[in-house]
Amino acid sequence: MQLSVLDEPDHGYLIAPDPARAGLSRCVAGHDEAGRPVETRVVEERPLTIYLNAREIVTAMTIGDYPEYLALGFLANQGMLAAAEEVTGVEYDAELEVVVVRTAVETDHEAKLQKKTRTSGCAVGTVFGDMMAGLEGRQLPAAELRTSWLYALSHRINRTPSLYLEAGAIHGTVLCRQDRPLVYMEDVGRHNAVDKIAGWMRAEGVGPEDKILYTTGRLTSEMVIKTALMGIPVLASRSGFTAWGVEIANQVGLTLIGRLKGKRFTCLAGESRLVRDADMAVVPEEGRRHRRKGASE
Amino acid sequence: MQLSVLDEPDHGYLIAPDPARAGLSRCVAGHDEAGRPVETRVVEERPLTIYLNAREIVTAMTIGDYPEYLALGFLANQGMLAAAEEVTGVEYDAELEVVVVRTAVETDHEAKLQKKTRTSGCAVGTVFGDMMAGLEGRQLPAAELRTSWLYALSHRINRTPSLYLEAGAIHGTVLCRQDRPLVYMEDVGRHNAVDKIAGWMRAEGVGPEDKILYTTGRLTSEMVIKTALMGIPVLASRSGFTAWGVEIANQVGLTLIGRLKGKRFTCLAGESRLVRDADMAVVPEEGRRHRRKGASE
Repeated sequence: MQLSVLDEPDHGYLIAPDPARAGLSRCVAGHDEAGRPVETRVVEERPLTIYLNAREIVTAMTIGDYPEYLALGFLANQGMLAAAEEVTGVEYDAELEVVVVRTAVETDHEAKLQKKTRTSGCAVGTVFGDMMAGLEGRQLPAAELRTSWLYALSHRINRTPSLYLEAGAIHGTVLCRQDRPLVYMEDVGRHNAVDKIAGWMRAEGVGPEDKILYTTGRLTSEMVIKTALMGIPVLASRSGFTAWGVEIANQVGLTLIGRLKGKRFTCLAGESRLVRDADMAVVPEEGRRHRRKGASE
Repeated sequence: MQLSVLDEPDHGYLIAPDPARAGLSRCVAGHDEAGRPVETRVVEERPLTIYLNAREIVTAMTIGDYPEYLALGFLANQGMLAAAEEVTGVEYDAELEVVVVRTAVETDHEAKLQKKTRTSGCAVGTVFGDMMAGLEGRQLPAAELRTSWLYALSHRINRTPSLYLEAGAIHGTVLCRQDRPLVYMEDVGRHNAVDKIAGWMRAEGVGPEDKILYTTGRLTSEMVIKTALMGIPVLASRSGFTAWGVEIANQVGLTLIGRLKGKRFTCLAGESRLVRDADMAVVPEEGRRHRRKGASE
């Protein structure tokens, strides 16, 4: 089903943010600098406990949408759910705030659970097991990256109605192909957003080789590793870099685009994929109202 | 020693960022949108493994400064190092990237290590044990919070030379008293920055009751919980809120100030501490060049 959707000309999102959706944000009463009462819309943040078969793996703090995708993607990105592994069911219990992923063959992740690394990413700053596991010798597929796509994606994503624009304090990650944003996930931590995308790709059987991952967040080692493990050859962000993120991107052949704002961007890895086809004369500068300020830090 | 320093009139930082310090950032070669070679300064991100006595607790990704404070503060904020517990030594091995905290009496944190919660904070999105443990019935001390202090702090902190201004992609947290920033820590994750401040307070025997904690990041549940556990009655940020963060702040009586930019801020909890003494006519609006954009998301 996805392939046909992906092949048709319609350039709409397959999944877009739904800022009006009940339960993702709420109005909170407070006061402003002058003591005037204000009603402020703030994002929700609720626990979701992920089980793999009978084993409790982790409790994530999340806005709460797409729990099944979050659980699938988290387990996949942590190497706890091999691509070959057969998922027999994903059950979400909203009342218990629990999601259970069931596999045909139960595996023991005791060892993985022993080793914890706090990473530099937002909100999912934990990687079980060896962060670099699965990256040895991995080279991401050759792919073309046209600058016209980057500018079109950045322009469209910044103008897409989102919880960020409604309430701030939230990250966004968008799975794209060429100049088309396909799946736009948001969460209190951008790593939840990335995991939701990984879960969607796995559930829908969508391949990574021709995709671009766009994130509002920083290009830390964890983001680079997740993107590489997902097999996506391009990671773009309006935000900045860390040195180790750049090193890993170079090791695995990932194209790393940062500080993508208006006409400007910096490429610190995988330059060879870039095709500078954009007519810079028509690329708009970033409008003030579309700048992300501190609210999503 | 700290008390005398805190009592003297000098309004300088006790610890300020040192962006020129070797090893915290490096220049990386890349290309800009037009294909021009660029040299970009990016922050480092390196592992630091924290031991409590003989037990390996966690590996943190950090820029690498103040490893002893980071280890002490992390263990204290995770409830693994009670205020009463005697620390007999903190040993850092730069080559092994390991820091060992030794206590007079060894404690077993096996139980705590079993439960992991991925939180919404940056970079230290892990809390061992029950996040809320230690918060039951806790009420933070009464304290006055003058708006003139908030504006003075925001103004000074935004103009302090920092790794953020040099390289971006980094968070800052500042321990303040009245209108004076005392200790300004930065890290790839703001939770490392908070832990470094907690470690400094513990090592120097500095009390929390008259302090203000300022962060560049979002006011998530984890940030609110850490601040409350540290006993600091005021948490201020230029960034936004989450609903659960506001709820917890109200429960423990923490004053929560968000979206603090130029003349503007929003108070969503602990309004009673606010004293609006600032002459709004002289409070400057935030200058363009001092806005934090996406780089520290």
